[in-house]
Amino acid sequence: MRYPPLLTDLYELTMLAGYLEQGMSAKPAVFDLFFRKAPYEGGYAIFAGLEPALDYLAGLRFLPDELSYLQGLGMFSRKFIDSLREFRFRGRVTAPPEGLPVFANEPLLTVEGTLAEAQFVETALLTIINFQTLVATKAARINHAAAGATVIEFGLRRAHGPDGGLSAARAACVGGVRSTSNVQAGLVYGLPVRGTHAHSWVQAFADELAAFRAYAETFPDSTVLLVDTYDTLKSGVPNAIIVARELRARGHELRGIRLDSGDLAYLSRESRRLLDEAGFPGVRIMASNELDEFVIDSIRAEGGRVDIYGVGTKLATCGGKGGGALGGVYKLVAVDGRPKLKVTSDLAKATLPGKKRVLRVVGPEGDYIQDVICLEDDEPAGGDTVYDPHNPLLQTVLPENAALLDVRQVVMADGVRSGASEDLQAMADRSGSELARLPQGCLRFINPHRYKVSISSRLNELRNRLIREAPGQGA
Amino acid sequence: MRYPPLLTDLYELTMLAGYLEQGMSAKPAVFDLFFRKAPYEGGYAIFAGLEPALDYLAGLRFLPDELSYLQGLGMFSRKFIDSLREFRFRGRVTAPPEGLPVFANEPLLTVEGTLAEAQFVETALLTIINFQTLVATKAARINHAAAGATVIEFGLRRAHGPDGGLSAARAACVGGVRSTSNVQAGLVYGLPVRGTHAHSWVQAFADELAAFRAYAETFPDSTVLLVDTYDTLKSGVPNAIIVARELRARGHELRGIRLDSGDLAYLSRESRRLLDEAGFPGVRIMASNELDEFVIDSIRAEGGRVDIYGVGTKLATCGGKGGGALGGVYKLVAVDGRPKLKVTSDLAKATLPGKKRVLRVVGPEGDYIQDVICLEDDEPAGGDTVYDPHNPLLQTVLPENAALLDVRQVVMADGVRSGASEDLQAMADRSGSELARLPQGCLRFINPHRYKVSISSRLNELRNRLIREAPGQGA
Repeated sequence: MRYPPLLTDLYELTMLAGYLEQGMSAKPAVFDLFFRKAPYEGGYAIFAGLEPALDYLAGLRFLPDELSYLQGLGMFSRKFIDSLREFRFRGRVTAPPEGLPVFANEPLLTVEGTLAEAQFVETALLTIINFQTLVATKAARINHAAAGATVIEFGLRRAHGPDGGLSAARAACVGGVRSTSNVQAGLVYGLPVRGTHAHSWVQAFADELAAFRAYAETFPDSTVLLVDTYDTLKSGVPNAIIVARELRARGHELRGIRLDSGDLAYLSRESRRLLDEAGFPGVRIMASNELDEFVIDSIRAEGGRVDIYGVGTKLATCGGKGGGALGGVYKLVAVDGRPKLKVTSDLAKATLPGKKRVLRVVGPEGDYIQDVICLEDDEPAGGDTVYDPHNPLLQTVLPENAALLDVRQVVMADGVRSGASEDLQAMADRSGSELARLPQGCLRFINPHRYKVSISSRLNELRNRLIREAPGQGA
Repeated sequence: MRYPPLLTDLYELTMLAGYLEQGMSAKPAVFDLFFRKAPYEGGYAIFAGLEPALDYLAGLRFLPDELSYLQGLGMFSRKFIDSLREFRFRGRVTAPPEGLPVFANEPLLTVEGTLAEAQFVETALLTIINFQTLVATKAARINHAAAGATVIEFGLRRAHGPDGGLSAARAACVGGVRSTSNVQAGLVYGLPVRGTHAHSWVQAFADELAAFRAYAETFPDSTVLLVDTYDTLKSGVPNAIIVARELRARGHELRGIRLDSGDLAYLSRESRRLLDEAGFPGVRIMASNELDEFVIDSIRAEGGRVDIYGVGTKLATCGGKGGGALGGVYKLVAVDGRPKLKVTSDLAKATLPGKKRVLRVVGPEGDYIQDVICLEDDEPAGGDTVYDPHNPLLQTVLPENAALLDVRQVVMADGVRSGASEDLQAMADRSGSELARLPQGCLRFINPHRYKVSISSRLNELRNRLIREAPGQGA
């Protein structure tokens, strides 16, 4: 897939034109992409979207019709349009691997390059990383609620457009939801695809039993029957049991039933009982209908017997409090080798200046204790005092025996990817195993434990100095 | 743009395979696409997405690699895969024009065709119409709040993927937000594009004044200066005034300033005062930063002096209560000439059976009084009694002197579009003028007046009879 270069805010282009005019295009610059608040009022985010972001950067170039369009806007000089002909991204990108838990204020992507190239890619990188990370995080939460039951992504029909649905399926896999109803996602991303029939199938036949029999005839080894078109327990499940018997007589087994309305906890318990009593303990129960992590939690809490959750709208559109959008931003942190920060009226929201590293403090059992953001040439170690990024009064001493490991690595240098692309299922494995290393309270949905992200003393000092020196701060 | 046919839920394909196996593929069928609840807890939705939906239908065909992929899944017969080679949509579609206000329970699209073709297109039509209608509705609300001030769509960086941002810009225009920061939307949809510079531009210079001067030098006639990088009233606006004077001395005028943080109502009033006192009443004030219809309302209520609102996240991702996703559904309403309904455990949610028309009851002043859904060959008229779709006890008598006009027309027949494609700005005009014909209370954001949608007595009788006859309903 090509990401067109015009998929950007106009201001990236006007700034580029201005930098060219000012002779500043080639100045070296560093930008950080980060978010200020974990989504869903939760304790973490799952980083996702790196592969498509690198595809975008590697393929960035303007086609003739795109240049003609820009020329036709009548606001750019010939010289600027000409400069875009050879425009490429030849910079360096540092990032965590997809599937890793990440936290507020940590630089996710750091982009180094000329001021022109590093500025221009802002909008597209944000579009890709914000949405992918938002979906992957939702998927991880839903997967956590499902507690070992299978989850299938079902959201295409409510997604934000065709590609919204396609890329949601990808990101859901990074977060641990490994299969989807979206066939295009199967083709493009190699995800396993799932699905059987809708209510309309049942309605198209003279009665429910005829509809179930017809479906089982076509797919004798993969039939999941939707049992709520008329009445789940009086009609749907009894008819499914008749078909299960008929299938067994022909040497097949009914795969499952699907509940799509009503009290899913109650209906799944009763359906389980009816199926078990009829001799079908192997028939799996699938549930769908406006599910999210909270509904799944409550179904489990009420003793629901659901084996498979089909999660659509809330997963693909990232619904729920603190959802809908990830507020990732892209900020200039150094230009011409000089660290920069943005202050605004709320000093606590001042950005972290300079090129930085993100370190994860790992305890003796491999457990994650906290993260530390430091300057590039900084080497914080066990025993050091580190600082809250928003309030210098809040200090912590790092444990003496802790290891500090880099969360990120260089993934693109001189515009060329440093490594091979990674498999989505490997990312899903990573999100699962890495989440297990966090303090357990971080995974809680309501009032989660706040995983600590500190800044090193040198970064703290640099920031305080730059705040004092900023215009309007009375320095 | 090609919409790949695999952009669908797997179950559409399994059902198609089943219908083929059962010899039912060619039965005539009718499906309705509708939603049960207006988004944002609001009083209406703005219908959008028809053009892309028709593009999808007209272009529907499977390419060889798509068929190979399906074959490789190992679940479909050779015969079925072969049948897909010639698969096209040759059916009929009835729909309102884009930009028209529409309401819960009204069929938006009605799709008639063979059971196979009309079933298959379900997922893609829902994906397109749900999202476009959701964004257009949000745009109309935001535009209404802005009360004549200009609104620009700014949301690409927070959108649900690249196409989420692109199609959001399109739908926003249908709802009356006619310009965008998204350059690709300018290229693809001909929308006017807007934008100047980011905070990073200011940070890249030695100081704010140098940054402003440099920008104004490059774009002397279209400069909008972002004034909150350091301190809006102490630094940003005074520096903007210096540049405005310098521009004027050279024969140009500063176009505007942009506020992007802090108390926008207060800052806009103070900025207006400073600009006016300095002799620049023509410099426009733009505001951005997590705006939506409620924030804009409050800025106006507090006497804010904003001329242009840049609305990003909440518009492109349809944020807010009752937002995030439109729950449009696609239901079989007739097969083989027989009307069908789906009941479920909540009888009040039973679908409306049969092929139907939607009529708008128009008063003598051209004002809209209510809508009536009736059967295809039904002719409700002034003086008739009509019924609430969910509660037959609620009845209304239509005014004697009202005209009843069809809301929809046939837009595709035999798979071919009936008319030319329509201009986006014409749709924006329509949403504006049509909203003005609704009872004013329908446009309110909180507890809006509920615009009445009734069903004709014949439709009411048919539905009641089919409910009584449905399995599990004790008939």
